Amino acid sequence: MSQIVTFGEVLMRLSPLGNKKFMQSNRLEFYFGGTEVNVAISIANFGGKVKHISCISDDFVGDTAISYLRKFGVKTASIVRSNRPLGVYFLEVGAVMRPSSISYNRSHSSFSEIKPSMVDWETSLKQCTWFHWTGITPALCEGGYHTLKEGLVLAQQKGLKVSVDPTYRSGLWKYGTHPKETLSDLINYSTIFIGGINEINELLDTNFSYSNEDFIEASKQLINKFPTIKKTFDKIRTPINASWHKIRSRMWNGKEFRETEDLDITHIVDRIGTGDAFAAGLIYGLQNFDDYKAMQFAAAASALKHTYEGDVNFSNVNEVMNILEGNTSGRFNR
Amino acid sequence: MSQIVTFGEVLMRLSPLGNKKFMQSNRLEFYFGGTEVNVAISIANFGGKVKHISCISDDFVGDTAISYLRKFGVKTASIVRSNRPLGVYFLEVGAVMRPSSISYNRSHSSFSEIKPSMVDWETSLKQCTWFHWTGITPALCEGGYHTLKEGLVLAQQKGLKVSVDPTYRSGLWKYGTHPKETLSDLINYSTIFIGGINEINELLDTNFSYSNEDFIEASKQLINKFPTIKKTFDKIRTPINASWHKIRSRMWNGKEFRETEDLDITHIVDRIGTGDAFAAGLIYGLQNFDDYKAMQFAAAASALKHTYEGDVNFSNVNEVMNILEGNTSGRFNR
Amino acid sequence: MSQIVTFGEVLMRLSPLGNKKFMQSNRLEFYFGGTEVNVAISIANFGGKVKHISCISDDFVGDTAISYLRKFGVKTASIVRSNRPLGVYFLEVGAVMRPSSISYNRSHSSFSEIKPSMVDWETSLKQCTWFHWTGITPALCEGGYHTLKEGLVLAQQKGLKVSVDPTYRSGLWKYGTHPKETLSDLINYSTIFIGGINEINELLDTNFSYSNEDFIEASKQLINKFPTIKKTFDKIRTPINASWHKIRSRMWNGKEFRETEDLDITHIVDRIGTGDAFAAGLIYGLQNFDDYKAMQFAAAASALKHTYEGDVNFSNVNEVMNILEGNTSGRFNR
Amino acid sequence: MSQIVTFGEVLMRLSPLGNKKFMQSNRLEFYFGGTEVNVAISIANFGGKVKHISCISDDFVGDTAISYLRKFGVKTASIVRSNRPLGVYFLEVGAVMRPSSISYNRSHSSFSEIKPSMVDWETSLKQCTWFHWTGITPALCEGGYHTLKEGLVLAQQKGLKVSVDPTYRSGLWKYGTHPKETLSDLINYSTIFIGGINEINELLDTNFSYSNEDFIEASKQLINKFPTIKKTFDKIRTPINASWHKIRSRMWNGKEFRETEDLDITHIVDRIGTGDAFAAGLIYGLQNFDDYKAMQFAAAASALKHTYEGDVNFSNVNEVMNILEGNTSGRFNR
Amino acid sequence: MSQIVTFGEVLMRLSPLGNKKFMQSNRLEFYFGGTEVNVAISIANFGGKVKHISCISDDFVGDTAISYLRKFGVKTASIVRSNRPLGVYFLEVGAVMRPSSISYNRSHSSFSEIKPSMVDWETSLKQCTWFHWTGITPALCEGGYHTLKEGLVLAQQKGLKVSVDPTYRSGLWKYGTHPKETLSDLINYSTIFIGGINEINELLDTNFSYSNEDFIEASKQLINKFPTIKKTFDKIRTPINASWHKIRSRMWNGKEFRETEDLDITHIVDRIGTGDAFAAGLIYGLQNFDDYKAMQFAAAASALKHTYEGDVNFSNVNEVMNILEGNTSGRFNR
Amino acid sequence: MSQIVTFGEVLMRLSPLGNKKFMQSNRLEFYFGGTEVNVAISIANFGGKVKHISCISDDFVGDTAISYLRKFGVKTASIVRSNRPLGVYFLEVGAVMRPSSISYNRSHSSFSEIKPSMVDWETSLKQCTWFHWTGITPALCEGGYHTLKEGLVLAQQKGLKVSVDPTYRSGLWKYGTHPKETLSDLINYSTIFIGGINEINELLDTNFSYSNEDFIEASKQLINKFPTIKKTFDKIRTPINASWHKIRSRMWNGKEFRETEDLDITHIVDRIGTGDAFAAGLIYGLQNFDDYKAMQFAAAASALKHTYEGDVNFSNVNEVMNILEGNTSGRFNR
Repeated sequence: MSQIVTFGEVLMRLSPLGNKKFMQSNRLEFYFGGTEVNVAISIANFGGKVKHISCISDDFVGDTAISYLRKFGVKTASIVRSNRPLGVYFLEVGAVMRPSSISYNRSHSSFSEIKPSMVDWETSLKQCTWFHWTGITPALCEGGYHTLKEGLVLAQQKGLKVSVDPTYRSGLWKYGTHPKETLSDLINYSTIFIGGINEINELLDTNFSYSNEDFIEASKQLINKFPTIKKTFDKIRTPINASWHKIRSRMWNGKEFRETEDLDITHIVDRIGTGDAFAAGLIYGLQNFDDYKAMQFAAAASALKHTYEGDVNFSNVNEVMNILEGNTSGRFNR
Repeated sequence: MSQIVTFGEVLMRLSPLGNKKFMQSNRLEFYFGGTEVNVAISIANFGGKVKHISCISDDFVGDTAISYLRKFGVKTASIVRSNRPLGVYFLEVGAVMRPSSISYNRSHSSFSEIKPSMVDWETSLKQCTWFHWTGITPALCEGGYHTLKEGLVLAQQKGLKVSVDPTYRSGLWKYGTHPKETLSDLINYSTIFIGGINEINELLDTNFSYSNEDFIEASKQLINKFPTIKKTFDKIRTPINASWHKIRSRMWNGKEFRETEDLDITHIVDRIGTGDAFAAGLIYGLQNFDDYKAMQFAAAASALKHTYEGDVNFSNVNEVMNILEGNTSGRFNR
Repeated sequence: MSQIVTFGEVLMRLSPLGNKKFMQSNRLEFYFGGTEVNVAISIANFGGKVKHISCISDDFVGDTAISYLRKFGVKTASIVRSNRPLGVYFLEVGAVMRPSSISYNRSHSSFSEIKPSMVDWETSLKQCTWFHWTGITPALCEGGYHTLKEGLVLAQQKGLKVSVDPTYRSGLWKYGTHPKETLSDLINYSTIFIGGINEINELLDTNFSYSNEDFIEASKQLINKFPTIKKTFDKIRTPINASWHKIRSRMWNGKEFRETEDLDITHIVDRIGTGDAFAAGLIYGLQNFDDYKAMQFAAAASALKHTYEGDVNFSNVNEVMNILEGNTSGRFNR
Repeated sequence: MSQIVTFGEVLMRLSPLGNKKFMQSNRLEFYFGGTEVNVAISIANFGGKVKHISCISDDFVGDTAISYLRKFGVKTASIVRSNRPLGVYFLEVGAVMRPSSISYNRSHSSFSEIKPSMVDWETSLKQCTWFHWTGITPALCEGGYHTLKEGLVLAQQKGLKVSVDPTYRSGLWKYGTHPKETLSDLINYSTIFIGGINEINELLDTNFSYSNEDFIEASKQLINKFPTIKKTFDKIRTPINASWHKIRSRMWNGKEFRETEDLDITHIVDRIGTGDAFAAGLIYGLQNFDDYKAMQFAAAASALKHTYEGDVNFSNVNEVMNILEGNTSGRFNR
Repeated sequence: MSQIVTFGEVLMRLSPLGNKKFMQSNRLEFYFGGTEVNVAISIANFGGKVKHISCISDDFVGDTAISYLRKFGVKTASIVRSNRPLGVYFLEVGAVMRPSSISYNRSHSSFSEIKPSMVDWETSLKQCTWFHWTGITPALCEGGYHTLKEGLVLAQQKGLKVSVDPTYRSGLWKYGTHPKETLSDLINYSTIFIGGINEINELLDTNFSYSNEDFIEASKQLINKFPTIKKTFDKIRTPINASWHKIRSRMWNGKEFRETEDLDITHIVDRIGTGDAFAAGLIYGLQNFDDYKAMQFAAAASALKHTYEGDVNFSNVNEVMNILEGNTSGRFNR
Repeated sequence: MSQIVTFGEVLMRLSPLGNKKFMQSNRLEFYFGGTEVNVAISIANFGGKVKHISCISDDFVGDTAISYLRKFGVKTASIVRSNRPLGVYFLEVGAVMRPSSISYNRSHSSFSEIKPSMVDWETSLKQCTWFHWTGITPALCEGGYHTLKEGLVLAQQKGLKVSVDPTYRSGLWKYGTHPKETLSDLINYSTIFIGGINEINELLDTNFSYSNEDFIEASKQLINKFPTIKKTFDKIRTPINASWHKIRSRMWNGKEFRETEDLDITHIVDRIGTGDAFAAGLIYGLQNFDDYKAMQFAAAASALKHTYEGDVNFSNVNEVMNILEGNTSGRFNR
């Protein structure tokens, strides 16, 4: 049976209950997340076989993180351990016009120690058919970049599909590499591009608008420059405020442009990980459906994620398919 | 002073906090509910005298269930005890397009032991003027059916008003009786029908649509077939998603058709028991107001129930009347 | 550096979690509040220097209240202590069409003992340039009235700006003074009027409507009668229900009428203290911006307060300015 | 069937979780208590019929208090309501050498309004055979004294047994009456004295030591002075620290002195209400056992109360009898 | 690598926080347990490979139970699913002389459906070297007995070590089989007996006392009657009260009698599963140490379990070895 | 008025509720601590004026830490801010023979950036008469060592008393300095030594035993080598297990040896910060009492700290004096 592999940092998320601020709290809820592991867990919840590779602290916090992945059935045998602490992020959840705030403690985390010598890619990619990575990993540290590249080179050799969510965040790139060049280097090993106008403009030094016409043209130019890329998928979020968003998606698969209807998320429960749910939905969908249905599945999965607390998309395939079939009125499941 | 009697299973409800799933929880909140006892408690909160009859486990869970009823002033003296466990239901509360999920553990509960010999109806109905039952009870077990029927026969003899909420759920009828025939048998002892097109179509083998014209015609045919029934009341829910509903109601009282305006429930707190709040509002209303105002009262009570956590409608008469008088802007009570 | 002084009762707020009623709870959350101290804390959160004057119980509850003010950097050196208990209010938070309910236990609280001899106004007003008071204080007790008046007389002599939020609540005035006369007496020492048509009609025995024309005329008549008043600011709330409000504001500064756009608060987290956030925003704004921007700042601050649990507006100046600049879509702060 | 009546203030108890102080908390647990109502609830838990008389606030806090009594089956029909707030006490739970701290807010509570005209003693004492009162009630307010006396006079006329727990706390007597005289006045209507050397010394102006010899002599002198008193019962607490106590009791019933063994309470859960559990155990015991076994039952009930959170003794008769039979090893009940 | 297999019901445990009773709670904590799965998880925490076989409900509660096992690394591939609900037990945690109380809801649980045809023992026992069973399984239902026997027969054929914890609870045996005969039948396939005088007396119809001499003689007679049994291990609990126990153990391994010192558990956190921790420690120990050290390890593991909330022994091998080495003073691990 | 200054890292502590492990939790409680700031807060709770100097993260977590100090009245004006995250430690609280476990995330915290140039010691020490430091600060980072030394040099010049708690933890010294030499360098600026045999042996390369004779001799040799030191104070902990300790202390003040009785802490609530409470008690005591009473006060303060959750000693002077006066039975404070 085929298996998907993800690679990236696992973070502990710490946030006060409800919409409280740290200054008015003495209790926090914790979850584990990180963009790639969120994708892994979501695919596991769809019934897929997934393996996550990371470097995790060798203490009771790290043990807890690993048991968290195991709980969802994500394979953890390739995870290495470090005596540095696990990365942490602190979250204050906003509402209405108040944005959520995040503060990171990750620059010297266990993952920041990752080095190519620590991952046995040959063993890790055995029986795998899909590799998913994001732009966060090469942004974090040089070891992340080189380790990832080694994995991608092997993945390409072995003919794995490789999806990339470039997620460009300029604040992260601090160790001396140029983001555009580094991302470009890695995208050359990838086949599915999960990103929008902003990421393409960043990579191509272009100035495309958000129009569908520009998205198509941008996608064509991207594929032209990175010929391993075959398809681009874009998730479009229309925020009314921090508590109410609309989500839709569009794609250019080299042949046709398609776009979904807006899904109206009137009462957001938790916005973290909704992009990762989209990526996971897409990875699952592209293995089971045609491109358009895969994108619909991804958009529905992303919308559903807004209804779960924490970073994880708990929805299974049936629950996502229900949304696709238009059952969005939330009637009881008995 | 007159008194209302209800008969049915009391269940323990167990649900994670907020919108959490069981898989991400280690704490649950518990409430007690069950469609008939929800009606009883709501009427007690309106200031009515109510007695609930049931069979409850003879352990500390059952003690807690009984003390829960007592807390609201519902009389519990006719409740019998069993050494089987109390029925339980597990609830995961959805949001937006995610439906809530329920899983039951009730098939061998204390109530499933109920038998006619266990209830002294003669004593139980003393000083009572109204009997309320639902289609859940005969669906659960044969003893439930026969015990209920014995009570209804006596209620008819004594001239009690009898309201029925048929609540047809096909998944429940497992002990060998035919739902339609069994319900029909019991409806013959009832005077007020609290149900809509679905229930009437089920009982009459008809195919009415949801239009007002069809509702009137359906009601007429129902009353024709079950001549003890004098009035039908229907609650119409328009779900935008699991977090946002609109509620209105309509009636045919043998003479006229009336319908209320939609009440807009933009931020649902808890959807469980909102139908029971409607029934309770109606039972209270029909004893205190004309039919139309009773229905308005019932719809407002049902709308208010969506704002309380748990199965219980906590609103008192003043609070419901405020909604009737158009005070729906939620200004402070000081 | 200049300093603002506020004077009034500090209350402990006790409310069940979420939308629960007391009858279904065994846990409460507590906060400290009170209209004037809410203003003080909000100004401290804007970076202002503030001193609060009050009379607080001499027990561990009072110690906790004082440490709560200190936490925000509000100066507490002028607070006096009493062996009476701290005032308390109990709150049940409503939702949708269910109003929130408040019950007070304050009539014999520590603050009710306040007397002019207990406050050394000369020392307290040193280095202060602004005095804020509300109509709650003279309503509570005669000592409150006389103590406040003594402070206001001195404030006027020293040339402080004096803002008043008259907040007329007829239920409070129980100790024998006539509200209108007492408030009028005190308004004669004030320069900024933070109130609307209701308060002006009360003070002038007029019958103005809510129209902008009437607001201008009412403001003119108010300034005519109380010539120390230079400007009036009005906050207009349009409630859809208890969970969804719109907020805007308008002003007459003696020269021009201005009005802001509605801010749409689609998912209210906590409505308490939103008027106090407006007053605090205005006091801060009038010291840093022109009148119109000050009012915009106040309205944005008030809107933001609806997103924080408890009585306190936690927003800092940047967060409020973001709303003014139209950033109301709630994007993440990383 | 015979019934017991208790009369006294119902208080809301508010305490942080575990051993936290208010200064480090934002959540409180609440219970309802008060020495007389604690006795009432404990007797109800023993299966006795009990009625509690009090004056309770006419708000949602008072509604919750009444529903709390109802939950245990205590009859609440004779309770009157007031628009003053319910009395409150704040508790910080100590441990080891740290004492628990209590702060009261009761001086102007709903109960402080009680007046003889508010209680219909004739109706209230119907079918009652036992009246229990404590020294807290006459200490609180003059109306408490006079209302209680009216009840006691009638109780004596009707031949009820009357137990008194004098609980002398000098800090409470503030309204101008002399404690000793007032208590003496009321003890003249009582038949069972539940108190120790301190209380007797206070009443007789004597100086007895804690020795058994002195206890016997003190009891004799007490009975001599108050000839309605037939028996004295004393509970002796030997505290090792706030977390570890030993409890035993002794009695003089006019004929013989008896004393129980120490019960070793090595891990106190909650110390509040343990004296009330003793009184309740005694009242139940004296109606069902001989004097010595009644005292043993009372001591065991009091010991058990230390294992329940809150003010209430939840133990039933079987659970107390188990202790009497020496089953103190805490083996599972399955 | 060798693997251990366990077989038995998985139960959901529901208990109020701390020492609360259900009647004073609205929140419960939940855990999953069951004597055999407790053993499995404890062995997994020692680093052993373990597989648990059971029948679990096919709903979100069952999903949660399975993810709970997976979290600890227990293999769940052989678990079958049923549409009956998962078994539940309710627990009120006692203290001092108050015993804990348990109420079960398991008689018609998913496990009660287990049948030999549902378990593929051939596949399940592959690569396994040890089988652990308890007397609970054959007590629950006939299918449990027959399924277990089929597994034991195969285990014996394959030469697995088989440990049995007979745990005789007479209240469970309700389906018509004779406990003694059924247990005897199954013990014939077992090699390690984890039980004491009570269980031996039950099986042999003898009347041995708790003395060491009797334990040796009883063990000899047991081994005589059940010659597959090679060693007996007994855990002796000396309860001071529900909060304070002492634990020691003794053994007869066919050649020598040994006994450990008492471990003093002065502040019990949770007593559930402490016998299972003993069994798990023994199974781990007998594979890694000599008999005496294995027994010491088991006793220390059992003592440590008393310090963890829930049913699970979280201790790893180092933590248990620390106790063996006399480090019982609880110094910090940094 | 004189003022005490402390200098050191502020850490966020994160621990599951009760005795839970991270692996069984999803909620944590957080506190702020750190050995020097614990001393500062405890002195503030004794009514002393204290200023804490540190380097704290410039995010909402750091804001919360500062507000936490302000809450207790500790002056925070000299605290500098950094864009590195606040140090964190994770704690699992043990019980009985299970030790508590701590895992740190502090090596690249905001405090690790501290440099002499960041602290204006001249301003910071104005009006100060006492400087307290510990061996943790020079162990953490070179900047900590140099910044501290700069402060100590100035403190000596200005004639401040300087207390040192050397707290030698070998695991911390990682940046290349030799612990013994570095500590010796700094002790040359100190006057009060708060440490025991272990620390003295470490500093003098001696091998003293724990006997009182050896303590006296060790103290003499220490004072000989570091002639600025005038007095040594030693706290002796006798752990029965993680839940039960005894505490006493002894001293050599250059003239006489004294020793206190053991205080028996039978039910530890929280053991963190108990050494800091001793140091704080000593600093307060030496300014208000003679040496022996100061030491008694310190030991009592330390014992009391074991009864508070979190790192902070909440006890005030009266509460400590009560223990000194032998009131250790934990009677109520009303």
